Amino acid sequence: MDNDMSRTHTNQREPAQTDPKPANADAGTLITDMGKRARTAARVLALAETDEKNAALRHAAQTVRADRDGIIAANARDLEAAGARGLSEAMTDRLRLTPDRLDAIASALEDVARLSDPVGETIADWQRPNGLSIARVRTPLGVIGVIYESRPNVTADAAALCLKAGNAVILRGGSEAFHSNQAIFRAIQAGLAQAGLPGDAVQLVPTTDRAAVGAMLAASGLIDVIVPRGGRSLVARVEAESRVPVFAHLEGLCHMYVDGMADAGMARDLVLNAKMRRTGICGALETLLIDRRARHMAGGILAALQEAGCEIRGDEGVQALADGIVPAGEDDWSSEYLAPVLSVRFVEGLDGALAHIARYSSGHTESIVTEDPATAEAFLTRVDSAIVMHNASTQFADGGEFGMGAEIGIATGRIHARGPVGVEQLTSFKYQVRGRGQTRP
Amino acid sequence: MDNDMSRTHTNQREPAQTDPKPANADAGTLITDMGKRARTAARVLALAETDEKNAALRHAAQTVRADRDGIIAANARDLEAAGARGLSEAMTDRLRLTPDRLDAIASALEDVARLSDPVGETIADWQRPNGLSIARVRTPLGVIGVIYESRPNVTADAAALCLKAGNAVILRGGSEAFHSNQAIFRAIQAGLAQAGLPGDAVQLVPTTDRAAVGAMLAASGLIDVIVPRGGRSLVARVEAESRVPVFAHLEGLCHMYVDGMADAGMARDLVLNAKMRRTGICGALETLLIDRRARHMAGGILAALQEAGCEIRGDEGVQALADGIVPAGEDDWSSEYLAPVLSVRFVEGLDGALAHIARYSSGHTESIVTEDPATAEAFLTRVDSAIVMHNASTQFADGGEFGMGAEIGIATGRIHARGPVGVEQLTSFKYQVRGRGQTRP
Repeated sequence: MDNDMSRTHTNQREPAQTDPKPANADAGTLITDMGKRARTAARVLALAETDEKNAALRHAAQTVRADRDGIIAANARDLEAAGARGLSEAMTDRLRLTPDRLDAIASALEDVARLSDPVGETIADWQRPNGLSIARVRTPLGVIGVIYESRPNVTADAAALCLKAGNAVILRGGSEAFHSNQAIFRAIQAGLAQAGLPGDAVQLVPTTDRAAVGAMLAASGLIDVIVPRGGRSLVARVEAESRVPVFAHLEGLCHMYVDGMADAGMARDLVLNAKMRRTGICGALETLLIDRRARHMAGGILAALQEAGCEIRGDEGVQALADGIVPAGEDDWSSEYLAPVLSVRFVEGLDGALAHIARYSSGHTESIVTEDPATAEAFLTRVDSAIVMHNASTQFADGGEFGMGAEIGIATGRIHARGPVGVEQLTSFKYQVRGRGQTRP
Repeated sequence: MDNDMSRTHTNQREPAQTDPKPANADAGTLITDMGKRARTAARVLALAETDEKNAALRHAAQTVRADRDGIIAANARDLEAAGARGLSEAMTDRLRLTPDRLDAIASALEDVARLSDPVGETIADWQRPNGLSIARVRTPLGVIGVIYESRPNVTADAAALCLKAGNAVILRGGSEAFHSNQAIFRAIQAGLAQAGLPGDAVQLVPTTDRAAVGAMLAASGLIDVIVPRGGRSLVARVEAESRVPVFAHLEGLCHMYVDGMADAGMARDLVLNAKMRRTGICGALETLLIDRRARHMAGGILAALQEAGCEIRGDEGVQALADGIVPAGEDDWSSEYLAPVLSVRFVEGLDGALAHIARYSSGHTESIVTEDPATAEAFLTRVDSAIVMHNASTQFADGGEFGMGAEIGIATGRIHARGPVGVEQLTSFKYQVRGRGQTRP
């Protein structure tokens, strides 16, 4: 969804706010109750008709548009609190809802309504020699917990994707967007009510008490999977603590490797696009690796980056190529800048690139630029990341660009979901076996 | 694989044995070391050629055959310890290795060598309007931990499936099979060595200290997924404690529902086969639900069961139909007997069956017997189990019968793997994106 992630860097503290509900005395009781209600709702939702789910999404979109002033007033309370906390202008901007942004939220809900319903879809089917017919059919996952720190639009996006895939969802948004999230949540509730679907299918944790996050992570048996979407410290906490399976979304510490056999002009254009098109998204380039044999094209690439306003932090070889290059420290190789800053180093061919990526990558997206097909295929095979690319900008690492419709984010783990997490990734499956009375010999 | 699971019922105690390695002073250190070595081996194995993996499996099979006497001698030590512990004759029989059983273990290794290699397989591919070509390609999962209580053959089966799918594996077998497992493990090591693959690709925990299981469950980041295979208390412990994702294998509390529109003869044959063909496997029938409208065929079904030596525990309506029926208690609806015992009750049509199954099923396999297609489809859609069947015996719930080759077991969770867990279910995937220099607008 190409959302700017850079705010999540400074978003780990959650000081008490002035007027959300006070910290719940027993977050465990709260989450257990919400989980049980979600489980009941999930059973209904798993069997809901496509038209019912789409009607809920479309009515939620209408309500977002109709209640524009109310949502913007709720957002104003969050903005006021943000001002009192001294939130940076960049972060405040990401929190701000405008009529245009609300229209985008409503349109996103309608886009999800237009996606085909994955539930009941036959993924594969075959017949056995004994005449048994076997089909692998998509089912919902059950109850999904989404823990996020992002902009208020995630409330609508995550709810819509989970709902479309027939799941109940428990949302736990960031405290700074508390009132905005609640206002958007009310529009989703209106959609569910209009469509005759259970309100408990989408629940928003009504407290900013951080203990609620811990309770969600402990809710094994009530929540089937946790989707953390946010900065490194949130995801690290979730991965360390959770007793519930996690679709990990680590940061996008994306690499591009310019091989000695690269086309110089293509390499320059790809690096520039991957780094500078939007610097705050998880598919933005963070480290550039240049084959020593491509040294002749390095100067042109660095000049183009500097001209576009990118700060370059380089190893000694890189520093020798242009003025104004900051010496790169060890930290730079593991920094997701989400800003116009790029770490650059020379490597010894493909093996050097593979070794650097194996050590520092977050497993999100890496790309090679080369005209040599064998080197390209070796890179695509050997790099163990969710997305590996040849002669393409890392900024294409996006569910929409993959043709998968909306997504919650890019999963960097290897279990169940990997890469863009859209409606299909929010499903499970079962086997349907049809016979004519066959017994097993 | 149709293995008899009944032993796992009484297999939860692990008293100290006489001569395996003494309890490790620091199981955490042991597992951390094994995990790091497994991770290194997994990187090599992920890129291993199909021929190398198959050569390792075939040579392991040869070694099992060649070292028959040595393995049987190791097994004799386990049998002696079992005798000293007073293990039941049924459990002792399952522990026993004979020349025939060793030949079956070797053949199973060769069968896995014959399966097609899932790694690198293109699951889906498509082209985007901008010319980007996107392929979803299978990759190994990484490092798999298998915790089992079953017969010694699981050592070979689990190692073979993990290896074929390009994964490193850490095996933790039951203490009563300690020497047998080690002997089989040595044959697998010989296969790896012969094929030039790292020995650390398959490791066997060299202690019966139960703390090693806890250390495996805590080894997040070193072990990517835990596969528990065993009785209810093992699986429950794993699910409750694990910080590592789990492919849960709950027991098979399988139901068959005989609808009012069933064919009486087919219903009798299917019930008899589902219950009595082999009573000790996880796909064996445990509870029979009979539609009140099918009361006229109930007597014939019960008579056939009793004639085949099946004890019946029934509700009041069932008790009225035949002599010798034990009154069913509440516990009977949640008992996996794995024995010639069946709980039977009358229900009010499909809705009654669905309600009973939703309450008591372990999510493994359920089957409906009916000639009415609409009722059948409603059952197949509404029952939330890994495998749902129409007019087929639950004993077909088996990877081999599904045409998937060998399997580790039947997963009852909804994350990643569900149903038979074979080589494909032991893989992940990544996206390969091929371009010609495309930048994102």
